[in-house]
Amino acid sequence: MKIEEIVEKVVAGEISLHEIDNYLEANAAMLARRLAVEKLTGAGLPNVGSTIIDYAEIKNRNAENVIGATQIPLGVAGPIKVNGEFAKGNFLVPLATTEGALIASVNRGMKAITSAGGSNVRVIKDEMTRAPVIKLGSISDVSDFLSWLHSVEDKIKEVTESTSSHLKYKGFSSFVVGNNVWLRFSFETGNAMGMNMVTIASEKACSFIEENFPKARCVAVSGNMCSDKKNTLINSLEGRGKTVIADVLLPHEVVKSELKSDPYLIHEVNLRKNWLGSARAGSVSQFNAHFANIIAAIFIATGQDVAQVVESSSGYTWTEVRDDGLYVSVTLPSMEVGSVGGGTRLPTQREALSIMGIKGELPHSSKKLAEIIASSVLAGELNLLSALANKELGKAHLKLGRNAKP
Amino acid sequence: MKIEEIVEKVVAGEISLHEIDNYLEANAAMLARRLAVEKLTGAGLPNVGSTIIDYAEIKNRNAENVIGATQIPLGVAGPIKVNGEFAKGNFLVPLATTEGALIASVNRGMKAITSAGGSNVRVIKDEMTRAPVIKLGSISDVSDFLSWLHSVEDKIKEVTESTSSHLKYKGFSSFVVGNNVWLRFSFETGNAMGMNMVTIASEKACSFIEENFPKARCVAVSGNMCSDKKNTLINSLEGRGKTVIADVLLPHEVVKSELKSDPYLIHEVNLRKNWLGSARAGSVSQFNAHFANIIAAIFIATGQDVAQVVESSSGYTWTEVRDDGLYVSVTLPSMEVGSVGGGTRLPTQREALSIMGIKGELPHSSKKLAEIIASSVLAGELNLLSALANKELGKAHLKLGRNAKP
Amino acid sequence: MKIEEIVEKVVAGEISLHEIDNYLEANAAMLARRLAVEKLTGAGLPNVGSTIIDYAEIKNRNAENVIGATQIPLGVAGPIKVNGEFAKGNFLVPLATTEGALIASVNRGMKAITSAGGSNVRVIKDEMTRAPVIKLGSISDVSDFLSWLHSVEDKIKEVTESTSSHLKYKGFSSFVVGNNVWLRFSFETGNAMGMNMVTIASEKACSFIEENFPKARCVAVSGNMCSDKKNTLINSLEGRGKTVIADVLLPHEVVKSELKSDPYLIHEVNLRKNWLGSARAGSVSQFNAHFANIIAAIFIATGQDVAQVVESSSGYTWTEVRDDGLYVSVTLPSMEVGSVGGGTRLPTQREALSIMGIKGELPHSSKKLAEIIASSVLAGELNLLSALANKELGKAHLKLGRNAKP
Amino acid sequence: MKIEEIVEKVVAGEISLHEIDNYLEANAAMLARRLAVEKLTGAGLPNVGSTIIDYAEIKNRNAENVIGATQIPLGVAGPIKVNGEFAKGNFLVPLATTEGALIASVNRGMKAITSAGGSNVRVIKDEMTRAPVIKLGSISDVSDFLSWLHSVEDKIKEVTESTSSHLKYKGFSSFVVGNNVWLRFSFETGNAMGMNMVTIASEKACSFIEENFPKARCVAVSGNMCSDKKNTLINSLEGRGKTVIADVLLPHEVVKSELKSDPYLIHEVNLRKNWLGSARAGSVSQFNAHFANIIAAIFIATGQDVAQVVESSSGYTWTEVRDDGLYVSVTLPSMEVGSVGGGTRLPTQREALSIMGIKGELPHSSKKLAEIIASSVLAGELNLLSALANKELGKAHLKLGRNAKP
Repeated sequence: MKIEEIVEKVVAGEISLHEIDNYLEANAAMLARRLAVEKLTGAGLPNVGSTIIDYAEIKNRNAENVIGATQIPLGVAGPIKVNGEFAKGNFLVPLATTEGALIASVNRGMKAITSAGGSNVRVIKDEMTRAPVIKLGSISDVSDFLSWLHSVEDKIKEVTESTSSHLKYKGFSSFVVGNNVWLRFSFETGNAMGMNMVTIASEKACSFIEENFPKARCVAVSGNMCSDKKNTLINSLEGRGKTVIADVLLPHEVVKSELKSDPYLIHEVNLRKNWLGSARAGSVSQFNAHFANIIAAIFIATGQDVAQVVESSSGYTWTEVRDDGLYVSVTLPSMEVGSVGGGTRLPTQREALSIMGIKGELPHSSKKLAEIIASSVLAGELNLLSALANKELGKAHLKLGRNAKP
Repeated sequence: MKIEEIVEKVVAGEISLHEIDNYLEANAAMLARRLAVEKLTGAGLPNVGSTIIDYAEIKNRNAENVIGATQIPLGVAGPIKVNGEFAKGNFLVPLATTEGALIASVNRGMKAITSAGGSNVRVIKDEMTRAPVIKLGSISDVSDFLSWLHSVEDKIKEVTESTSSHLKYKGFSSFVVGNNVWLRFSFETGNAMGMNMVTIASEKACSFIEENFPKARCVAVSGNMCSDKKNTLINSLEGRGKTVIADVLLPHEVVKSELKSDPYLIHEVNLRKNWLGSARAGSVSQFNAHFANIIAAIFIATGQDVAQVVESSSGYTWTEVRDDGLYVSVTLPSMEVGSVGGGTRLPTQREALSIMGIKGELPHSSKKLAEIIASSVLAGELNLLSALANKELGKAHLKLGRNAKP
Repeated sequence: MKIEEIVEKVVAGEISLHEIDNYLEANAAMLARRLAVEKLTGAGLPNVGSTIIDYAEIKNRNAENVIGATQIPLGVAGPIKVNGEFAKGNFLVPLATTEGALIASVNRGMKAITSAGGSNVRVIKDEMTRAPVIKLGSISDVSDFLSWLHSVEDKIKEVTESTSSHLKYKGFSSFVVGNNVWLRFSFETGNAMGMNMVTIASEKACSFIEENFPKARCVAVSGNMCSDKKNTLINSLEGRGKTVIADVLLPHEVVKSELKSDPYLIHEVNLRKNWLGSARAGSVSQFNAHFANIIAAIFIATGQDVAQVVESSSGYTWTEVRDDGLYVSVTLPSMEVGSVGGGTRLPTQREALSIMGIKGELPHSSKKLAEIIASSVLAGELNLLSALANKELGKAHLKLGRNAKP
Repeated sequence: MKIEEIVEKVVAGEISLHEIDNYLEANAAMLARRLAVEKLTGAGLPNVGSTIIDYAEIKNRNAENVIGATQIPLGVAGPIKVNGEFAKGNFLVPLATTEGALIASVNRGMKAITSAGGSNVRVIKDEMTRAPVIKLGSISDVSDFLSWLHSVEDKIKEVTESTSSHLKYKGFSSFVVGNNVWLRFSFETGNAMGMNMVTIASEKACSFIEENFPKARCVAVSGNMCSDKKNTLINSLEGRGKTVIADVLLPHEVVKSELKSDPYLIHEVNLRKNWLGSARAGSVSQFNAHFANIIAAIFIATGQDVAQVVESSSGYTWTEVRDDGLYVSVTLPSMEVGSVGGGTRLPTQREALSIMGIKGELPHSSKKLAEIIASSVLAGELNLLSALANKELGKAHLKLGRNAKP
């Protein structure tokens, strides 16, 4: 059938939007579907249709029922000097956002950091987790089950590692509510963020458990103690993805010249806003000003799983006024990023990664990415704290945008 | 100067990336900046440069230092029947994502809901908040300050409402830590998400306070009890943006025919994963399976502030097995969306909104959007719970994508 | 029957421990029960039996199945100078504890505070709460129910206030999860802590609701959003019982002479322990060093409900190093105390209250008590922070006791 | 000097209350102090003075500045049949409380449990923790410090175990905020609750660290991640003291005959109150009805550290309606109890322990105690859930007491 015919049949309700894939090649299907949606809804979608994505590449991988692409402005901030273990040197950082003032704000923080010699940054843990919930009959069974589990851990390692050559089993923690047990499995997943890998591995572990400990039944391979796309304290305590710390000591003259601010005022804002305010509001792990802004913009630009901004934006901003300057640090316990897989393969996302010299095939490239992101978060915090201390927040947005930062 | 000259000077370090705007019109500046970034980093950025955005339109509004655009695959799910107060009828819903299986998954949930007569949905609160932190000298001052505040609330209303004709003052809550007071101001902001408006209004309130109660000093216009782009319990208790509830009663045959599942198993997964698991993990407000996935995909597609996925994905999934079917509900206490402002003006985002018939100039269009989003979240939850109950999660991703859902 | 006979029948299993009350007067029943327990278990209980309590007084009021009394050492700390609204002057404070070093520790803090002119303290809110959970059929019903509730609030006030002349209705907040609604009712309860009063009043409100809105069913008169005897953020945000703030400005010489310490070190311990440490540990409302120690000891001494130490010990310690001294404040959002009712009527408890001049029949006596307790908590915090800063914690306990403070 | 003279000098301000110990033997000092307090405050304290405690025994161990004792009514509940690893058989359980209806309520739950064959109970972890906070100069130092720590763990084990023959080092977890590190040390402490032991051991560990890693400075031996006397999620995740689980399967006829209730209603109350309600209220670890009531009453009776009710009352109540009955379980992740040390040596407390056959010198006696407490908590939960389901809460208190249970 020709595209026009297909469109007509869809509009007539004879073919569903999804079934178009049965009749047409991926890019043609995308076009037919967009035309059908235009007819069905009366909406004109020319901009959505103007896309450089090859839908044959993403079909069955990144999206279904596609009609085109969303375009988000992409800017760069920097250069920022990064003194990491894997990221060393000056980097321009791509940020995709629709929020006015964000890129300019990160840029100003980066300038101050670079003037001060750069951000120091380390990835201190790197593991992806999945936590099935297992149901047993009674607490006696639970007690037996926990003992049994420890006796077969070698087998669990073997079973899970059999699912992928990129996966390395690291261990598990267990948590109990009556006759229910959560097993939080941890794995190294190379340069991939790794969620899919660890899901498949955990399903295998569950099968092994159900076969060998018949009283145990796996209720769900994800029991929410993983915790994926949720803000939970367990992620901050045990880490998920990369645990990254970054800091900088800004000489007092840099605070004055680059940020037009005062170290004591910045420290005061940090304490009363990020610590007292977050505590009083009932945050479990976001004692920061706006990690989420920077994380979201880089995640979109580089093809990360954007829903993981929820927990990747967890973390702590800590400041000290010292004799030799203002000390600022950020701690990100659960930053989930990859340099391969997911959206990283898409054309504009791959290009954005290349701006930072990130290539998925290179060893430690996902850690390098994590170091650059943490440094960018440090820049964003530094700038917002000083903007708040200077009482310039509303003004900045009146001038540069229409949507305020927190 | 010509573009080439500018590029050379940027590469030579004589002009900064930001200063290009001083020499060239916005779209030319975008091009020059991209070319400069290519030279500076060695990265090729042809796809980033292939964009339909008019950068003269977004300059000083949505982004700075632009070099082009990020493209994200856009698909549609649905139709879903929605029985809201403002959204009534069948809707196709645009989702922008790079996560395989997500759109198909939402689509299946929507089919089940529509078969059951549609989702019922209500917006039960709609207010945007900003919470300055105020410092006083002592607890005696705090006590006096709180009394004074209540005596001048009319004035605070007047001062804040003077900043915008779209803004309506609704009240404040106060919270104390020793000599520090947070004032959480609430406003109605029409069809705009409203963060910028309420920041400007709160700055005015702070100025009024500092002038008329000299012992009070505003440390920061945002004291983190707002709470913007953070997951906090106060947002779930008091609401931020739209508080939305949606439900559906799925006849048992629909659960079987559309979801190939069993209501008791779905209910069991919901209890042990979403309630016991989230509680045990230390979540303060995300007792759900994957609100964040659907929220993120629609937020990107429709030009919302993506960093607000953090708190907009808060909420509760509740199920009951009844004689006449499986009851499923979702509660989203703090969904922050607008149909005007921010990224909603951008070309592909505006088109995505038009697929749902959302036009910012129509009254209640942001509530209509909120109702459609909550219904989509209901679909996403329903499908993932049944997929987990059916133990088909890993398989779905092996087949359809490379990144697992939680 | 004689006591001996009863005892024999209990031992023989013919009469249960509880049924002894059917045969003997309260004090004789207490004795018989103790003798029976001795025979049944082989335990000698002479000390338990040595008690001045008149069990006829407490029967059906304070305890059942009594066999005697537990004796806990009672000490006094102070005097502490209190500059409250209701407590004015110097007070000795009774503390009942078995934890060595606690009383001495509070005492040292009180000495420092008194040297500095006393603690300033205010009760800024005083309301007791109860939160039934109501079940409805659907979210549409919820929406209707919330509207209806607001239309009948006058009636709810009338119904609840009809249950006690000591009760004053103050309002309610509502919270939703799908088809479930929590109504958090607030009341003033005079000098009583008030839990029993508000339970009875809330049961009446529930009956009224079920009769007049037939789709609503009250699942439980306490739906855990009250929140009684649980540590929850809602208690800290909305307050429960008394919300009390206290502070003191300690001149630098007092820090040195009384606490042998340094204000900067104390401030540093407060920040890193009470704020960073509690945040990192996942506390929702206990950003303090050991409120619970002081609260527990005074609650036991004065006949409060000791299980309420759980939420009464919530709160925040905040310090500032100023030019003129070390500023220390404590904020207790949910201190639940009464000067009448409960255990306050018991002989030793009534005497302990009288040490502070607290008499239940005097107006505001429960607020006076709250002011003295908050001032004592301030003393306890001050001393422990300085002991930690001075690295004398282990030593203090080696010398003075066998159980360490936090 | 004679007692009268001392009293006069105290009243005259020549001798402080504390200094009385310098002139008199402990019991005489107690008397003199009480007489002085009577004169100073005008309060009559005859009941406080009527005590069987030998103050020479508790001086420098359990309390300072003593004036006598507080007496709290002591009752017994039970017998309850316990099927533990260490507690086997029927037990009467001592509860000290001033809250009417509590003992009767626990008693009814115990009767139902015993009718059903008893509670099953296991201690699945038993470790006491202390978490110093260590300050370093930068995140690079933190990274080095963490590596170094792992290389010297043998030495840390040696140093800490040198402080007591009862102490066994089990390991540590580390947590970072910028340049700050918390080390959460875990130890086995035999039958003692162990706080004092682990404080002294941790101080030794800190000295070792400061000597051997000079860039590290211990800010406080307790950095609040311990977490002592605070309700934190880390305690629920990692456990503190005993982690105990208990359950019972109540045949449907027992629910009906003993509790006059319906298993479906009890299950419904448990879900909507203990899970939805606690989640919505912002509890981090108290998804139960009233653990704190039972914990507090037994802690007071048996000489435990009452301030530790705060975290010992953390935990989860889980119910299931099964074909063969109502399944009820309780999970207590951080119950801190000892059978030696602290208040367990006091006369009435020692007797209360002996009622349950607990003798500190016997191996595993503290675990036996923990098993009995958890079983009693199970009884308390069961009864309150059924009382709520039966809508008899207010009535129970009208009849039996003046203070409501949650």
